[in-house]
Amino acid sequence: MTVTKIHQHTFTQNATDCNPQGHLSPQDLVRHLIQVATEAADLLGCGWDSMREHGTIWVLSRLAFEMNSYPRAGQRFTITTWVESFNRLYSSRCFEITDDGGNNIGYARSMWVPIDFNTRRPARLADFSYLAEAPVDRPCPIAPPARLHVPATPTDTGSYTFRVSDLDLNRHVRSVAYVELAIDRLTPADYDSASLSRLDIDYRREAHWGDCADIVSSTVATDSGTVTDVAVSVDGEPVNLCRLTLISNK
Amino acid sequence: MTVTKIHQHTFTQNATDCNPQGHLSPQDLVRHLIQVATEAADLLGCGWDSMREHGTIWVLSRLAFEMNSYPRAGQRFTITTWVESFNRLYSSRCFEITDDGGNNIGYARSMWVPIDFNTRRPARLADFSYLAEAPVDRPCPIAPPARLHVPATPTDTGSYTFRVSDLDLNRHVRSVAYVELAIDRLTPADYDSASLSRLDIDYRREAHWGDCADIVSSTVATDSGTVTDVAVSVDGEPVNLCRLTLISNK
Repeated sequence: MTVTKIHQHTFTQNATDCNPQGHLSPQDLVRHLIQVATEAADLLGCGWDSMREHGTIWVLSRLAFEMNSYPRAGQRFTITTWVESFNRLYSSRCFEITDDGGNNIGYARSMWVPIDFNTRRPARLADFSYLAEAPVDRPCPIAPPARLHVPATPTDTGSYTFRVSDLDLNRHVRSVAYVELAIDRLTPADYDSASLSRLDIDYRREAHWGDCADIVSSTVATDSGTVTDVAVSVDGEPVNLCRLTLISNK
Repeated sequence: MTVTKIHQHTFTQNATDCNPQGHLSPQDLVRHLIQVATEAADLLGCGWDSMREHGTIWVLSRLAFEMNSYPRAGQRFTITTWVESFNRLYSSRCFEITDDGGNNIGYARSMWVPIDFNTRRPARLADFSYLAEAPVDRPCPIAPPARLHVPATPTDTGSYTFRVSDLDLNRHVRSVAYVELAIDRLTPADYDSASLSRLDIDYRREAHWGDCADIVSSTVATDSGTVTDVAVSVDGEPVNLCRLTLISNK
């Protein structure tokens, strides 16, 4: 079986989808990364339909991106994705984001875990032996998604009740909703004076409609800007952790 | 000057963007309608850039759609748009939504008002005299967007503070955020037992980051399902009104 190892998708940044800073938002970037990963899994023969035949689905476990700049209104950009490695427990998928001229503007890394659709327990990737030839030796020069923790000394707290518009096809809170909860801990002025250079996100548990989430965050100054850690918990258990790394504008 | 009078855009419904009912969500449909309208305005020579040269921008005033069915995961669909009419005060733009086989699955209507970018007062469309040839005589057999009012006897109330992720390029709350606030008044079970057959939305005022909105809604039973009216107000003034018409599943 021949597999398509490297997949590309080109997008156009619509003006109507730009964020207040006039460019692709972090939440839409994550949405696009997940879409492109899903397309690539289909092309590898381990997409939604194939996995379901084995009673298995891919669950996004962790993701990180670093962006030097973001596409602005009307600009085209391309996301290229490939599998870096996989083992018995998870698959590591990388991404490069390039501008219309083919210049690199960012990278991303993601870890996906196959789980049994019914038991919600980890499933075995061994059933997909043809994936052995999937990994591509291509550089992705950013650190893996960080292991994150609940901030020990929160500087800010909040709450949020998950809504119909936060739910995905599986009736869990969609991955992108947590990106929104994290970026919403800061103000428009914060994003005017600094760039979101890196985002790490760690998906711990599934949340559902009506769940009331407690949000705690901690922002600390660094030599170059700020780091904000955000934890979203339901019933005292963290469901999602996120870290925003901002670099101050010169 | 030759104008492109009818514009089409074909989308693929990603599984990862499907709602709990397994299809295109109302908020993504509105997002796509606005995107396609913006592309069409560009092609007519009255897009964002051209209008700005006149110190003018288009503001979405009212919108309605009726859908017989919604695209499901992996399905392609096409949005076709054309200007039905324009006068001194506003432009009326229609849409037809078709499935991959070219069969109609829905229609939409929208009203756009040109406003002066600085004064935020209505501007004159007379400056765009070449738009006289834009209207197309093509049927759009749904009622115009309804004039809506704040429900006199609310059956439910809530509140919401606008977040960074709700803001658009102009730093106003994005049109789609109000669709989300409206659909979130009902439960997943409501959408499992009925189909959203029509949505009317009436954009009254601009809202901003940190504005605390009061939401009131009223759901009444009809012969075929329910009608829910939703009003979102800031400082006692309605900023957005929306009506959801659901038809019970047989």
